[in-house]
Formats: sequence, C-alpha cells, structure tokens
Amino acid sequence: MSHWIDNQKNLMLFSGRAHPELGEAVARELGIAVTPTTARDFANGEIFVRFEESVRGSDAFVLQSYPQPLNKAIMEQLIMIDALKRGSAKRITAILPFYPYARQDKKHRGREPISARLIADLIKTAGADRIVAVDLHTDQIQGFFDGPVDHMHAMPILTDYIRENYCTDNIAIVSPDAGRVKTAEKWSNILDGAPLAFVHKTRDIDVANKVTANRVIGDVEGRTCILIDDMIDTGGTIAGAVEVLRKAGASDVIIATTHGVFSDPARERLNACGVREVITTDTLPQNTEGWDNLTVLPIAPLVAKTIHEIFENGSVTTLFE
Amino acid sequence: MSHWIDNQKNLMLFSGRAHPELGEAVARELGIAVTPTTARDFANGEIFVRFEESVRGSDAFVLQSYPQPLNKAIMEQLIMIDALKRGSAKRITAILPFYPYARQDKKHRGREPISARLIADLIKTAGADRIVAVDLHTDQIQGFFDGPVDHMHAMPILTDYIRENYCTDNIAIVSPDAGRVKTAEKWSNILDGAPLAFVHKTRDIDVANKVTANRVIGDVEGRTCILIDDMIDTGGTIAGAVEVLRKAGASDVIIATTHGVFSDPARERLNACGVREVITTDTLPQNTEGWDNLTVLPIAPLVAKTIHEIFENGSVTTLFE
Amino acid sequence: MSHWIDNQKNLMLFSGRAHPELGEAVARELGIAVTPTTARDFANGEIFVRFEESVRGSDAFVLQSYPQPLNKAIMEQLIMIDALKRGSAKRITAILPFYPYARQDKKHRGREPISARLIADLIKTAGADRIVAVDLHTDQIQGFFDGPVDHMHAMPILTDYIRENYCTDNIAIVSPDAGRVKTAEKWSNILDGAPLAFVHKTRDIDVANKVTANRVIGDVEGRTCILIDDMIDTGGTIAGAVEVLRKAGASDVIIATTHGVFSDPARERLNACGVREVITTDTLPQNTEGWDNLTVLPIAPLVAKTIHEIFENGSVTTLFE
Amino acid sequence: MSHWIDNQKNLMLFSGRAHPELGEAVARELGIAVTPTTARDFANGEIFVRFEESVRGSDAFVLQSYPQPLNKAIMEQLIMIDALKRGSAKRITAILPFYPYARQDKKHRGREPISARLIADLIKTAGADRIVAVDLHTDQIQGFFDGPVDHMHAMPILTDYIRENYCTDNIAIVSPDAGRVKTAEKWSNILDGAPLAFVHKTRDIDVANKVTANRVIGDVEGRTCILIDDMIDTGGTIAGAVEVLRKAGASDVIIATTHGVFSDPARERLNACGVREVITTDTLPQNTEGWDNLTVLPIAPLVAKTIHEIFENGSVTTLFE
Amino acid sequence: MSHWIDNQKNLMLFSGRAHPELGEAVARELGIAVTPTTARDFANGEIFVRFEESVRGSDAFVLQSYPQPLNKAIMEQLIMIDALKRGSAKRITAILPFYPYARQDKKHRGREPISARLIADLIKTAGADRIVAVDLHTDQIQGFFDGPVDHMHAMPILTDYIRENYCTDNIAIVSPDAGRVKTAEKWSNILDGAPLAFVHKTRDIDVANKVTANRVIGDVEGRTCILIDDMIDTGGTIAGAVEVLRKAGASDVIIATTHGVFSDPARERLNACGVREVITTDTLPQNTEGWDNLTVLPIAPLVAKTIHEIFENGSVTTLFE
Amino acid sequence: MSHWIDNQKNLMLFSGRAHPELGEAVARELGIAVTPTTARDFANGEIFVRFEESVRGSDAFVLQSYPQPLNKAIMEQLIMIDALKRGSAKRITAILPFYPYARQDKKHRGREPISARLIADLIKTAGADRIVAVDLHTDQIQGFFDGPVDHMHAMPILTDYIRENYCTDNIAIVSPDAGRVKTAEKWSNILDGAPLAFVHKTRDIDVANKVTANRVIGDVEGRTCILIDDMIDTGGTIAGAVEVLRKAGASDVIIATTHGVFSDPARERLNACGVREVITTDTLPQNTEGWDNLTVLPIAPLVAKTIHEIFENGSVTTLFE
Repeated sequence: MSHWIDNQKNLMLFSGRAHPELGEAVARELGIAVTPTTARDFANGEIFVRFEESVRGSDAFVLQSYPQPLNKAIMEQLIMIDALKRGSAKRITAILPFYPYARQDKKHRGREPISARLIADLIKTAGADRIVAVDLHTDQIQGFFDGPVDHMHAMPILTDYIRENYCTDNIAIVSPDAGRVKTAEKWSNILDGAPLAFVHKTRDIDVANKVTANRVIGDVEGRTCILIDDMIDTGGTIAGAVEVLRKAGASDVIIATTHGVFSDPARERLNACGVREVITTDTLPQNTEGWDNLTVLPIAPLVAKTIHEIFENGSVTTLFE
Repeated sequence: MSHWIDNQKNLMLFSGRAHPELGEAVARELGIAVTPTTARDFANGEIFVRFEESVRGSDAFVLQSYPQPLNKAIMEQLIMIDALKRGSAKRITAILPFYPYARQDKKHRGREPISARLIADLIKTAGADRIVAVDLHTDQIQGFFDGPVDHMHAMPILTDYIRENYCTDNIAIVSPDAGRVKTAEKWSNILDGAPLAFVHKTRDIDVANKVTANRVIGDVEGRTCILIDDMIDTGGTIAGAVEVLRKAGASDVIIATTHGVFSDPARERLNACGVREVITTDTLPQNTEGWDNLTVLPIAPLVAKTIHEIFENGSVTTLFE
Repeated sequence: MSHWIDNQKNLMLFSGRAHPELGEAVARELGIAVTPTTARDFANGEIFVRFEESVRGSDAFVLQSYPQPLNKAIMEQLIMIDALKRGSAKRITAILPFYPYARQDKKHRGREPISARLIADLIKTAGADRIVAVDLHTDQIQGFFDGPVDHMHAMPILTDYIRENYCTDNIAIVSPDAGRVKTAEKWSNILDGAPLAFVHKTRDIDVANKVTANRVIGDVEGRTCILIDDMIDTGGTIAGAVEVLRKAGASDVIIATTHGVFSDPARERLNACGVREVITTDTLPQNTEGWDNLTVLPIAPLVAKTIHEIFENGSVTTLFE
Repeated sequence: MSHWIDNQKNLMLFSGRAHPELGEAVARELGIAVTPTTARDFANGEIFVRFEESVRGSDAFVLQSYPQPLNKAIMEQLIMIDALKRGSAKRITAILPFYPYARQDKKHRGREPISARLIADLIKTAGADRIVAVDLHTDQIQGFFDGPVDHMHAMPILTDYIRENYCTDNIAIVSPDAGRVKTAEKWSNILDGAPLAFVHKTRDIDVANKVTANRVIGDVEGRTCILIDDMIDTGGTIAGAVEVLRKAGASDVIIATTHGVFSDPARERLNACGVREVITTDTLPQNTEGWDNLTVLPIAPLVAKTIHEIFENGSVTTLFE
Repeated sequence: MSHWIDNQKNLMLFSGRAHPELGEAVARELGIAVTPTTARDFANGEIFVRFEESVRGSDAFVLQSYPQPLNKAIMEQLIMIDALKRGSAKRITAILPFYPYARQDKKHRGREPISARLIADLIKTAGADRIVAVDLHTDQIQGFFDGPVDHMHAMPILTDYIRENYCTDNIAIVSPDAGRVKTAEKWSNILDGAPLAFVHKTRDIDVANKVTANRVIGDVEGRTCILIDDMIDTGGTIAGAVEVLRKAGASDVIIATTHGVFSDPARERLNACGVREVITTDTLPQNTEGWDNLTVLPIAPLVAKTIHEIFENGSVTTLFE
Repeated sequence: MSHWIDNQKNLMLFSGRAHPELGEAVARELGIAVTPTTARDFANGEIFVRFEESVRGSDAFVLQSYPQPLNKAIMEQLIMIDALKRGSAKRITAILPFYPYARQDKKHRGREPISARLIADLIKTAGADRIVAVDLHTDQIQGFFDGPVDHMHAMPILTDYIRENYCTDNIAIVSPDAGRVKTAEKWSNILDGAPLAFVHKTRDIDVANKVTANRVIGDVEGRTCILIDDMIDTGGTIAGAVEVLRKAGASDVIIATTHGVFSDPARERLNACGVREVITTDTLPQNTEGWDNLTVLPIAPLVAKTIHEIFENGSVTTLFE
C-alpha cells in the first residue's frame, strides 16, 4: 500500500572558510542565505564542521575557494561534503571556482603524480555528485571526474571589460607561452580577429617557474598587447613576457587572467614590469591595496547563474550563447 | 599448514586482428610468439575470441591497433581483455599504440561526450590493469585511466630520422594549428633550438575538418619546415598548412606525424600539396603504395622495449633519458 | 536557509542511428518527439554525438537497435549514454530491443569471454542506471546488470497473431534445439497446451552454425508445427529444422521469432525451405522485399508502453497479466 | 522535446519475517500498511521473496529484526533489498533496530574478521542507500557504512520510564564493564548527575562470556543501582554484576538495556540474580512469560518517527533535542 | 634503494563447518592439512572465526559446503573471507561445490530478487578474488561474478560410473523437465549418442515443487532410463518422473545427480518410486543410511585437482580434455 | 607460448616531509635507505613530488607523520601514493603512526562528518592497498578501511619503560575520562592487576576541550598514578586530571601517552601541573627542550619490525605475543 506525496527540492548553499565573501556574494545573487555552519580548527589543525540546519533531502552546493595555503581548504571541502553525504543531502555539487593542483594534470616525467585527477577522485570519494569549475587549466580536467562537470568560462567577463575600456582596433592577443596559443586564438575570435603572438620560452623542469629564454613569435610592434593566462602565480613568467613584449615594440601591455593567485612576489613584479593594467576576477580573494593597477571583476554573478540553472534544470550551455 | 613454492611469472603477448603484422613484429623483437588465438566474426558481426593456450597466471599484454573502422577493433580488444580476466591472467596490460577517440578528450561544447575518458573506463571495466599508449593526442589522457599508463613517445624515432636525412641548420618547426605549438617547442628543443611557427586558423566546429582561414605566425621564409602533428586523418588541415607555408616562402616542407590515419582523401591531398616527404610510424597499418613520398618508421622496437621493461620491472622512464 | 520549489520530471527519448524508424515509431506511440541529436562519423570511424537540447535533469531513454555490423552501434549507444551522464541527465535507461552478444552468455569452453556480461558492464560504466530489453537469449542475462532490468516479452504479440491467423486445434510447438524446449513449453501453455517437440542435433562448437545431425523428438505427424526461436541469424539451423519436420510428417511449418537477424543467406534459406510463414518483429530493421512469406509485427507499442510505465512509476509486470 | 510532469514520492514499508509484529506496529504508527510480501523457505533453506505490489519509484523502508538464529534473517533482508533494487525502488533504507554482529566491530586479535563492517558492506552491495539503527554497540559502526546512517537512541525511552517509576534521588548508574563507562556517564547526565560506578572484570578472550574476576569501582553502597548495557545476551556478565553490586552494598538493582537478546539461560540467570526489574525494548521479539520482572517498552514509535522524518526530509536530529 | 628478495607463494586451505569431512578429503588429496581454525557460534547465533596460523601472503582457498540450513553457512564463508582479506591473504578463492540460491538465477516474475547474482556480489564484497564451483544450475551464473570462475563438471565422474556398472546399449537419457534437455543432450553425446527424452510438466509457480501434469516426450519403451538432474531437493519432481517413465514402458530407471540435497521427504520418495539406483556426489554431506540404493561418488579428487592447477597456474580446462 | 622467469619482490621505503627523521630511523632499523624523493611546495602551496628511482614492481611503504598543521601532510601522503600507483608500484602500504582525524570517528551529533572514515577512503582512493597504524584512537577505525590494517600497539614500549623505572607495587592506572577505562583495564592486566580509576567529567560539546567538572572514581589515595591516554593535544584535560588526582591524595602522577601532539599550551600546562614525568613516543616529532620532565621513546623499531614482517609475509600478530 503506497503513500504518495508531492516531491519538492530545496537549494542550500554552503561555503568553506577560505573566502567567505565569495559565498556571501553568490548567496546575495541567488536571493538566499549561506547555510549557517560551525567550522573551527582543533589545536593540531584538524578541522571540525557541523551544519546548523537540517540538510536532509537538499540540493546542496558546496563552494570553496583556494587561496594559499590550499591543502587545508581541500580537506575542509572534503569534510563538508562528507558531512552532507552522511546528513542525507539528496545531491551534492562541489563548486571550485579555482581548481587546485590543475597544473599537475599529467606526468611531465616518470614517477610523478597526476594530482589534478587525484583531486577529482577525492571529491567523488567524499560524496560529491557533480563539479562546477571556472576556467580549468586544461579543458581535459573535465574528464578526470566521473560525473557531470559544469565548466564555466570567465573570458566573456574579461573581454567585455576590455571592450568597454579599450579601443580594440590596434590590439594583439599574446600567449605568455607555447601552451596557451589555442586559448589566445579563442580570444582573438571574440575580439574581432585580433592578431596573435606568443612568447617562446624554455622552463627548467627541475626548478619551478624558472624561465631560461624568451622570444616573441608574431607581430606585436606598435600594438596594445592583451597578455592572457588562466592563472598567475608568482608572476615571473608573465612579468618577463611584459618586458619581452615591450622590447619587441609593443605600445602597451594589459594582462588578463581568470585566477589571480599572486603569490609573493607577484605584486612587486607586476607593479614593476611596466604593465598598464592587470585584470582578474575574484575566484580567489583579491585585495587591490598595494597594487598600482589591479582591476578585480566579480565572479559571483556567473557562479550564481550556474547554480540557478543547475537547480532549475535549465541549460548551462546557454550561459555562453 | 603452509605449502610454499617459488613464484614465477610469464610473459604472454596477444594481438587483435586489426593489424596482426604489428603484433608479429613486436613478438619478434621480444623473441617470443604471439599467443595462438581463435578470433572470428559471427554473421551478424558479433566477435568470438578464444585463446588456444592456458593464460592462467600470465602477465598478459594485449595489443590492438586502430585503423578504420575502429569501433569493431575496440570491442575486440575489450572482449580479449574480458576473456583474459575470466581465464585468470594475473595482470593485464592493454597496449593501444594509437588511442582511439583521443580527439574527443573534452566537451568542446555542452551535451557532448568525453569519449576518450569513456574508452579508458571501458578498458578498465573489461579488466585491464594498465595501459601502454604512444603519443596521446593530449598528455592529460593519461589521467583518464585509474591506473598506470606508460606513455611512450615516438618523437625520438622521428627526430633521429630527420637528423640522419636532413641538414637541420636551416629548418623551422611548424605546428599546423594553435594547439600544437607546445609540442613544436619540444621538437625545437631536441632539434637544436630550431625556430618555431604555427598556422593560425579557424575551424568550423559544426563541420569536421573544415578550415576557414590560414595565416603563418613566425618566420619560415627560406627555411625547410618540419610540419608536425600527432595524427593526420583526412589531411585537409595539414595539406592546407603546406600550401600556406609555401606561400609564406618556405623553401621546403616535411611532414612528421606519429599516427598516419590517412583516411580518404589524405593520400591524394598529401601527394598533391607539394610536401617533400611524409614521415610516419606504423602504429596504424601503413602501405606506401600510391604515395609519392611516404616513409614509414617501425614502432615495434619501442613497444617491445616497453613490454620488456614492464615485465622485468625496469624503468620505462629510462627509455627516454 | 532552504529554498524550496516543486520538483518535476521530464521524459526525453534518444535514438541511435542503427534503426531510426524504430525510435520514431516509439516516439509516436508516446506522443512525443525523439530529441534532436547531431551524430556523425569522423573519417576514421570515430563517432561524434551532441544533443541539440538541454538534457539536464531529464529522465532519459536511449534506444539503440543492433543490426549488423553491431559493434559500431554499441559504441554509439555508449557514447550517447556518456554524453547524457556528463550533460546531467537525472536517470538514464538504455533500451536494447535486441541485446547484442547475448549468445556468448557463458564460457562454452575455457579461455572464452562472457561477452553478454561485458556488454552489461560497459553500459553501466558509460552511465546507464537501468536496462530495458526484449526477449533476452537467456533470462539469466538480467542478472548480468547491476541494476534494474525490465525484460519485456514479445511472445504475446506473436501468439496473438497466430491465434488470429491459424486454427490452433492441430498445432505442435517445436523447439529447433534442445536448449529452447523450456520456452516451447511456455508457448504450449499459452496456446492451450499444444503438444511439444524438439529437434535433437549436434553443433560443431568450432564452426559456428554447423549442424551435424537432426532428429525430431516428440510427435509432429500431421500437425501444423510452430517452430520457435528467440533469434534467427543465418537461418541454417531453423531451415534444417523445417526440413526435418517435413520429413517427420508435419503438415505445415510456421516459424515465429522475436529477433529476425537474417544474416546472409537467411532469406534464401528460409524462402527455399518450405516454411509457410515466417513471423518476426522489428526489434531489428526489417524489409519484406525479396521474401516469399515474411510477416513483421511492430515492437514499438510494447517498448512505448514500457517507457510510459517506467516514467510514471507504474508496474511493468502488469503489461503481461 | 521534453515532456514534463509533476514528481511525486511514495512511502512503502517492508518487513522481514523475523519479527513481523514490529513491522505491523511501525506501520500502525505511520498510518500505512506493510506491503504484502510473499516470503517462504525452500526445503533446503533457501529463501524466496516476492512483493505483491509494484515497488517502482518507491521510497522503500525494509525492516528486519535479528532474534536468534540471525544469519537467516540477514540473508532475508539482503534478498529483500536485492528484489527492491531490481524492482526499481527509488531509494532503499535498511532498518536494523538491532544491528547484527555489532560486537565484532574490530579485530580483538590478529586473523579475525570485522564482521560489523562486513554487514555494512553486504547491505550496501545488496542495494540499500541508507541505514537506520538503534543504539549501535559502538558509535563508530556508523562509519562502517558508506552512506547516511540515522542512529537512533533508546535511552530517552528507558530514562523516561525510570523517572516515572523510580525516585532518582538515591540512584547510581553502573556500567557492567570498563567499556561502557562513557555511556553510563551519558545516563548520569540525563538523570541529574547521578553517581557513576563500573564493574572491573577480565574476560577470557578464548571463551565467550567467561568472566574471571569482578570488583566494583565507584560508590554504590545504599543506592539503587541502574545497571545499563546496550545488549544482554546470555546474561552471565550482567547477572554477575548484580551479585557484585549486592555484595558491595547496593540497596537495589535495576537493569536497563536496549536490546534484550536473552539467549538461554538469560531468563533463568536474571530471574535468579536478585534484580528488581529488567527493562528493555522490543527491538527484538520479547515475551514476558516466565519472567519475574521483565518490562518491555515499545520501540515502534521511535522507528516510525524516524521513517516519517526521513520520508518528509525533516530533521532526525530534532528527535533528540 | 631497492631491497630485492625471491618471491614465493604458499597454498592454504580453509574449510567451513558445514561439511568438514569434505575439507579433510580435499586436503588429503593435496597432501596438505586444513588450516587450523577456531570457529564457534555465540549464543544468539553470531559466528566467530579466527585462524590459528598466519595467513599473510597466502594463496587461500576457502571451501564451504551448503547443506540445509544454508544461510548460516553463507555467512560463515563470507566471514572467513573477510578475516582472510583483513589478515592479508594475497589471493582468495571461494570454493562452493554446491552454489547456493542457484535456482533463483533470474526473475521468474516481476519484483523478485536474483539471489544467485546477489550471492556472487556478496562473495566479491567480502573479498574473494575468484570462485570455484561444480555444476552450476545454469552456466550463466559464471557471468554473475566479476572475476574468474572455474566451473567444474561432475558429469565425467557420473558417466564413468555408469559405464562401469551398466550396459549402455539400451539406455535413454531423460531430462525430468523441459529446462534440462540441453544437458541431457550432452550426456547423450558422451554416452555414445543414446536417445533423448524429457518429461513435459507444468509447475505451479506460486507453490514450490508442485507439479500439475506429466507426459514423456521421446521414446523410452523397453529402455534403461538415465534420469539426470543437476540437483535433487525434495525429490517430488524426480520421483514423479520415475513413475511416468515406468508407465511409459521404461525397463529400468537410474537417477544421476551432482548435488543430492535430499530435503525431506526425498529419501522416502526415492526409496518408494521404483528407481534402481540413485547416484550422486558428496558436494553436500551424504549418508547412505536409510537408503535402499544410494551411491555416493567422491567430489574431493576433482576439487583438489582444480586447486592444484589454480595454485600452479596450470590449465583447468585440460581437466576435461 | 609462455616466457617464464623467476619472480622477485623489492622493498622500498618512502617518507613524507612532515617528520623525515622518523623515516630515516625506520630505514636504519631495516638496513635500507629511504628512496630519494623530490618534494617541494609551489608558491601557492601546491605540493610536487617525484621519486628519483624507478618504483615499478616495488613493495612500497609510504610513511607520513602528522604534526600540526596536518592537512598539508595528508595531501602530501595522498599525492605520494598516487605517484606510486601511476608509477606501477606492485603493492602500496600507507603507514600512519598517528592517524589524523581519529577523534572524529563518529557523529557526536547530527550533520557532522565522520572524518576518520573519510581519511581511510581518501587513502584507498589514492591507491593504497593497506594501512599500518599505531594506537588508533578507537580500535573500530580498523574497520573504516576496506583492506588490511595492521594495528600496532605502543603499550608494551610504555609499560616496559615504567617497569624499568618505577616500582609497580603501589601504582594505580587512571583513565582521564570515562571513555578510556577499557584501555586502562588493559594496562592494569599488564601491570600485575594494578587498581583502576578514572576521572568523571563533562565536556561541553560546543566548545572543544572545555571541561566543566571533575571527580575521581576509584581509589588513588597514596598511590603513584599512571595516567594514560592515547594522545595529548593541548593538555587541558590531562593537566586537570593530574590536579584532581593530587587533590584525591595521589602520592605521585606519571603520564603515559602514545601520541604527544602537545599543541600550545600543552608544554606550559604539563610543566605546571605537578606531574612527575611525561612519557611518550615519537610517532610525532618531539623536542624535549623547554620540558621539565618529558621522556621520548622511539617508535621506529616497532614500525620497522612491522614492515619487515609484512614484506616477508611473517606474522604481525606475533609481535605482541
């Protein structure tokens, strides 16, 4: 004998402690509140999490940002997902605006890990059904997760800003290395077929971020160069690229990046390198203090729209069309 | 009460029917024989496989090549793996010199599959413990498999040939599109820092292989261009690149590719495009008949060395150092 | 803070390219349309699939038929399921009116695969939650899938047709071999306890479909024999059975089979063997051209009713009671 | 083209044959009926189960009690879960008021099983999504299941009864061994900070239930001792504790336990040991016949409230606050 | 820095308590001893197991027989496997001479379990890598296990005995129902093409073992009928078949079955039905007391040879060739 | 055709960076060297690991200690395991002398995680086959891992030291709270049946480590109290217990703990509380500087012996017998 009732679903948003302002901003865009959560560290660093409201049956979205030091933030998001799973959330979506360890997406040499795949497996194991990410270091990381990945792009946010603030008649799109030329090509397509260039360099694979040689391939003379990258960490590569572009005759250089990691001494390097403006989003916490020329565009509207479409079973694809 | 005996291991090589000559060549290099296998198609296309010798306890290597039409070859390799699993092979290594569906390694747009990940999952599900592949379309595909992937590179085979047959003083390394510039940079590093270039083009993503515009970025004038790609399918892109390079003043063009798929009308296009030589390997079955200038380098020594190192617990990494 | 809304579900039907008419027929019965899908083959045979509408949150039914050569059709269905999984379909049901590789449902001898189990595992791995199939070669195949299998039976469609077109007073139900006698017994129960018989034969297990000896066991003299089988491939066995029945004094022979594979030279053999009528369904694409006496009964109503019950959470069991 | 309808959910309750009265009592509390089920034993002990109504899409709760001999009851619950999974239940919750094999929750010595983890894995494998249990032998068993476990506590039922029937001014809470002192502390907190004591004893780990020495630690003289335990099996330990408490000057002893297993000769021992009242619940079938002083409190209201909250997505946590 | 030593493997045999004589017999054939094991039941039926020797690194074979009541024997074997897994056995092979629940190998009607698949999953979950079984009720059960299944056949043992004790010139092979005709055909092939027959009957699917009608199909008049079945439970079907064969003119009837379950009242029925001899093996414990004509052939040599081949990586297939 | 060679195995030890001295000490005990490993942090905290020698086919033991802040150490061990899995190690054993998050081994209240189970799942997912741990917070954590857990005990190391340095005639074993009385009982059994006591206190579950009331249960007057705990974090509980014991008339107090976490202000508290000696092991890095009375016993011999037994397939159980 069956007992039928109507089925409902409810949206709940959870935020880790790595960047609580982003969680608040996303909640505001959605017109809801972040679910009250007790989170604290024990003296030896173990994290404790407890939700202050029932999560049973919820469509749960767990947002975590990944500023340094990010390993703690990873464990916190995994623990939150575990608590949701054991608290009977109906569906769990992990939101990683900046996907950690994305650079280790392959074995560069033998006996290395593929940490980006490991992260996907850990999130799955903890109990998440789906992932939302913004501008993955490589698109293939989507395939590391055994389930749906909604991969959002910040490029429209960045290119809209550039169109509004710069004349695009005399620009060039420049990739700071050989691996991002394809992305630069996409920027060029959006920005009216602007010419392409890239910096040909060699990294020493034994020493992180050490660049040994630089040369511009493509014509940048007299142009305003839009130097793009998915992320900027210590800024060595990108600041070097600015100088090389200057030497190659670029009239001006603007940097556009989705993920402004800006580990020390990125700020010093970028302030000093002669760039006109550094444009980024707040997938990671940003602070313009001490910067000569940093512009931060909010990512919360994009994340909120994505959550809304996922919850309402709308099409995320249409966000880009 | 225990009953102890010495443990031994035995190497067994199995070959699908897609390219039996490759299996034979690998076996010859190893000094063993391919395990006799009954394989036939039922009238409706269902494949039947049975091994003619006991495979119990073996360290089994299952080689399949992927010429067109490759879907049947996929099912055959999966069925062989299943039969090995159920026949108590101790460890099963799937060897895919050409990894099928590698181009679909991400969702280019929404509602697409990630078929390259699916292939990795199917191989795992059938029962393989490990994969050996040569020159994956993107390195990240290593991370699609939940287990060890030995990713071999044919570049040394190709560059050795070029060194032996061409003067490398006046060459340029050219990527046929923006996505391979990173690979071209690796070739440049091997070939004494030869200059880089790439062809900037736009594909129409709704129609396969349709190129809408071409422009060389980088300096190729008066140089012998080594035009590289991991695979050549119908040859439209690469033949177009040859023409663009010619127009840009290249003195000569040589094509080097690991996987010569050469679907119709690749041969016609490449014969007609003005290339001096097309160099490839036999990860797929090759036939020089009807070609003006096709050179096929054998891949079997590399595959055999890899199998040997895996079986003997040597280091595959050292094959490249 | 929770944000509650009503939950809805939506039915979406997807069809592979192996037998699009069946997809259309099922859609018509359901009063919906097949979801528009881009599907094409790359030059080397790789299949590309993309859905033209958002599938997010859908209750997705993916229908594929399996005419020869079926390995491509298998990969297509798996790729469609992967695309649905990654596109966030809520539930995925794979519909296989004809289940491929069903004959390899056990190891007939050592070192063979169990391909029918492999198929179930592949479908699960790709992302399907459930399977719908019609007249599996053996009922045990239900148990190969780790999830719900709705196993539909075409027998009522076939027996209704026989009742309407033949007098059942003087019939016998005949199994073409020793393995189908149980099924024949079920037919007998439906058809008023008609007498049973079977053909005692020996297959050479090394050569497919090769029959070495035939003898009728059971009394068929003067009777109209209903010769049944779940599938007819090249027709050798069944045509031989017709002849043996004729020799044993059968007054007439009618063949009834759910799955008319009819690989060459089935049509020739069946036209020539003296059977009065061959009755089948269109679980596989059928064409009566060139046949003396082929009757094709539509399977779409049964498939559509099953989808309807699954979607509405009705009882599939009641379809047979 | 989508076809949208409202989504509904329906509650269905299933009961194993080990304690059908409990299933009926829970159903009465919920205002529904236990789903009619055919369950019988074949002559060799194999269990057959079939549900008499469609379970498709249901939110299924499968209740089994675990009186001796419990291995058959385990298989029955697993088989019921398998039938629900294959019959397309939407969500399956296994209810185990008494969790079997809970005492084997660790390896006491090497080469032992962890049977309590095994039970969790078996339930998961059969197809259950969630577990409901009452007073697990150790709380950590929650972590043995890879999914939500709603762990209910009978303590409030037992302490309410004690408050209503006894003056709590002069009581002591006593743990029968060193491992339950923590639980006794919780009782003490509820019962106004009553003093604590425990019996210090040594078990011979090679012989079940054999106690070698007893001594009361804590002050019980002149007090009414509430002797608590999660379960009482043969009663040897607990009856011995009563005697030790009497000798130590306790004015009266009351036993309170959630799970009255009462294997032979528990009744005889408890009748003879001088306890004033034995209080338990009916997580296992109880019969007061032959007992001098057994009180059985119904567990059905707690189980029913839990099911109700789970089905309605309410908070189970609030049942205790 | 590596530290290399030679690898060894050791064979350890474990036996459940359901049929310890079989374990002893197998050990004798292998020239080893059953590993000493503490196994006992707690008062409420929970089973405790501990091995008395280190099992670390062993190639463990866990034998359990399945006489009634078999659910306890299932739990015991699962618990033994769990203890081996947690005790670091290197490989675990579950030996089930009689595979329990094999008759429930499909859903006969809707809302039934597939218990034979469940058994395979439980064994896998507990930690077994492989299964050895004798004469599965249907061959497809091999495909229920996700791993190697060595499926042994007792037919040669039974047919050798018949050849030695009976003249086979005038025999007929008879299946007691329509579902075993295929097996009878195999017997016929071994026994020089002896004629086939079967009993056409109807079971009432709601009442176990109830036969409603019987008729012999095939010619048995004047012949010694070898009535075969994989298992005999209460003997109703088979005893009925003997009577029907007698009425149909059989000169004599001999019953041959691998698994003599012989639940009450099998002995009475078989003693009374007029059969000349009942031949079985001791996959289940047998006792000839009270039987007029029971012959028990030992299964231990076959099991021991299989273990030997598995341990030594020989070919099990050759045991039949 | 098989190609047989002898099988060998090699022991490789890997050490994380959290406590390299422990890795070195274990290696010394084993007479081998820790495998050279490159490990460094990227500027944003991402960890990079690469092994400097081939790990193919190795029996790999990965040791990590867990001092604060431990989340980074967790990620490092997971990444090392991933690199070993992808580098084709044959078997991977994770060694966690101090198991992180062990205190969160259950849901203390609703909507909490079970982080100790999560840790087990993460280690499994990364690729470890087995775990070695020392003195888990609760024994049940063994059951959180789906595979072998070798659970070592430091008690003999601690009790041997006490025997050698103290007269045990007049001691009492004291548990600092109600949850460790069982462990204290084990100490009492080893130390000649010394009397037991415990401190009855109430923790405020909303504020970590806050104790609200203390009372000794058991007789400690005039005795040297051995106050035991598996781990000491900030020392509040244990320092409070020392004071309570002093007030209750203890003549002296000694603290013995396996895991000296000693988060601030543990040292100050323990120096000030009047304890005679604090005895611990170096499962975590220890430094006696600034301590009045800290004794550190080495854990490396126990870990090394365990590795040796696992590698040689000896019995770990015998280490305690």
